[in-house]
Amino acid sequence: MSFDQRIGVVGGGQLARMLVQKGQEMGLQMHVLCSTLQEPAAQVTGFVHIGKADNADDLRKFFRAVDVVTVESEFHSAELLGAIEKETERPLFPAAPLLGSLQDRLSQKELLKKYKIPTAEFCSVKSFEDLKAASEQFPKGFVLKKRRGGYDGYGTFVVKSPKDLRSAGEAFNFKEEPCIAEAFIPFQRELAVIFSRNPRGQIATLPVVETHQVKNRLDWLQGPCKVPPAKLLIAKLKKFLNSIDFVGTIAFELFDAGRAGLLINEIAPRVHNSGHYSLEALDFDQFTLHLRALMDQDLKEPRLLSPKFSMVNLIGAGEKKPTPAKVLTGHLHWYGKSESRDGRKMGHVTYLGPDRDGGLARALRERKGFRL
Amino acid sequence: MSFDQRIGVVGGGQLARMLVQKGQEMGLQMHVLCSTLQEPAAQVTGFVHIGKADNADDLRKFFRAVDVVTVESEFHSAELLGAIEKETERPLFPAAPLLGSLQDRLSQKELLKKYKIPTAEFCSVKSFEDLKAASEQFPKGFVLKKRRGGYDGYGTFVVKSPKDLRSAGEAFNFKEEPCIAEAFIPFQRELAVIFSRNPRGQIATLPVVETHQVKNRLDWLQGPCKVPPAKLLIAKLKKFLNSIDFVGTIAFELFDAGRAGLLINEIAPRVHNSGHYSLEALDFDQFTLHLRALMDQDLKEPRLLSPKFSMVNLIGAGEKKPTPAKVLTGHLHWYGKSESRDGRKMGHVTYLGPDRDGGLARALRERKGFRL
Repeated sequence: MSFDQRIGVVGGGQLARMLVQKGQEMGLQMHVLCSTLQEPAAQVTGFVHIGKADNADDLRKFFRAVDVVTVESEFHSAELLGAIEKETERPLFPAAPLLGSLQDRLSQKELLKKYKIPTAEFCSVKSFEDLKAASEQFPKGFVLKKRRGGYDGYGTFVVKSPKDLRSAGEAFNFKEEPCIAEAFIPFQRELAVIFSRNPRGQIATLPVVETHQVKNRLDWLQGPCKVPPAKLLIAKLKKFLNSIDFVGTIAFELFDAGRAGLLINEIAPRVHNSGHYSLEALDFDQFTLHLRALMDQDLKEPRLLSPKFSMVNLIGAGEKKPTPAKVLTGHLHWYGKSESRDGRKMGHVTYLGPDRDGGLARALRERKGFRL
Repeated sequence: MSFDQRIGVVGGGQLARMLVQKGQEMGLQMHVLCSTLQEPAAQVTGFVHIGKADNADDLRKFFRAVDVVTVESEFHSAELLGAIEKETERPLFPAAPLLGSLQDRLSQKELLKKYKIPTAEFCSVKSFEDLKAASEQFPKGFVLKKRRGGYDGYGTFVVKSPKDLRSAGEAFNFKEEPCIAEAFIPFQRELAVIFSRNPRGQIATLPVVETHQVKNRLDWLQGPCKVPPAKLLIAKLKKFLNSIDFVGTIAFELFDAGRAGLLINEIAPRVHNSGHYSLEALDFDQFTLHLRALMDQDLKEPRLLSPKFSMVNLIGAGEKKPTPAKVLTGHLHWYGKSESRDGRKMGHVTYLGPDRDGGLARALRERKGFRL
């Protein structure tokens, strides 16, 4: 690489913002494609391209302005991105076909099944008849999700009763929004693990963390999490990443189903909220690792800088003028969003030990001091 | 504070750049006043004000655009900064009178003497007669420095012989550039220690590091450095900071003169090259601590994240197209300067253990792979 390497990030949210910041540290020229100058990532670089990720002209201009492209979200048209990549000869990571199969929850699941990665049983739901069939196939209940788009639990629906079934049938227009039904897993806890892989197949594995969701949204996490069966799963996932030749950072959300073992819940082929703690708790963070990966720099296993760590999300509640807590011993990352909305991720705070709980109790206590 | 707090940094170099980056993490709106959009700090924020730090109109506009102001360099006119601070009612840190007495090496030394902080003997040099008097006062040699401006050894001159004396006499125009002569200290090694202090008097003390200079410029450092007499000196320096009511981050360069003890060499009332390691090696870095200090947020002693650490500077050698080392296991910070010049600080790399030397041998080896 050279220091004037130009990296383009499609998207202007907090993930793009943190990618930009870490890239700048490394001396990369960080460009973003986003809608307004007020977006989180647009505030932290002089190289902002105003445009839309679903507009071919905007994408074309953006790709041509940089040397390498990556995406903040997996939900843009993989087909369009792939076409522009080919036309402009600017490499895109992750590769467009992989984005395509991972952004569709059905093909994502099929991919997992193909590589024998443990995950909940599933079936396609394209009609109310399919929905009824799902309720017969999964008598203990299932989760209905849109196949495309939707994150943080938007567009998911738990079906456990005939009443739920009717509501689900009414809530979705299956023709326009094909869905997937996934067997409900009675899990003990949720976990997450993140990898970064470069084109040569070197992989950095971040520690397993325990995640706690509120309203389907990550609320806090704690780590590292000792889970004996994780070792085997991690080995399998590394093989999987090599097989599909994934390049970049990728997050796996897991269910710990106790005796039933660990199952993959979802894959996000990008830097992920469950890896933000790495900015402070590891010697190399998920953003730096992602950028190193796509430039084919050496990757090694990141090292823990604290025996325990925790992270709390700062979720918006619609305050006009959010204010930080007066007592704050953790590492604040505020995303600079122009307005607080209910449920919006506004920032996060990371805590390192020495507390035995990695600062979690402190984190939850101090978070109450924020007006969000 | 609130999240829309606007911090203005006068200056656009690497110190401003890292202040901007850490401020953005905390959610602060980071503004810079600098000469061009290509400067290191201008590249990493959307809030750039083009102007000069010695122009009253530029300063006035800049102060009015922000809530709090700080400076990257202590060598701007303290008088002008103080006048604009008063006029615009935007607080400046460090306070203008302190900037004034610390930016002049003579009054800096007088201040140290007043507070009984150990430092080399000195005298004012305003003429060739003063210079001759200095050579009589300091028969073992002395260092002649310009009182104002000059850093990284620019404008300093070691006088150890009658020949040096003549050369020094020719090199300086004492009328235009009053100087100070400081007794030459036969030191064993050089050290540095950094503090951040908030208006309430809370002080965070960074670990003592051993610094190694080449051509009067910091080349590498290693820490933390166990120096038994440092404890007493640190206590004295904290009292000193309280007495002068210093707010912000301040660096002290020290001589370890063995049995003669520790002596202050120079003070830089700002974030400092000898503190860059803190971005990785401490739980709170000098830039974050500086910003916390000037917003009167709580400060606590930073915690080491690695038993040993080291840092190497990347010094320009005039390459047209600098390139990073292929093998690089440390944390690269590249400042994004538009051209490499001989002796220019282009970036730095931080290493954490587990190596017993804090990665120093690795650092010096890997640095050879850079083209600078």
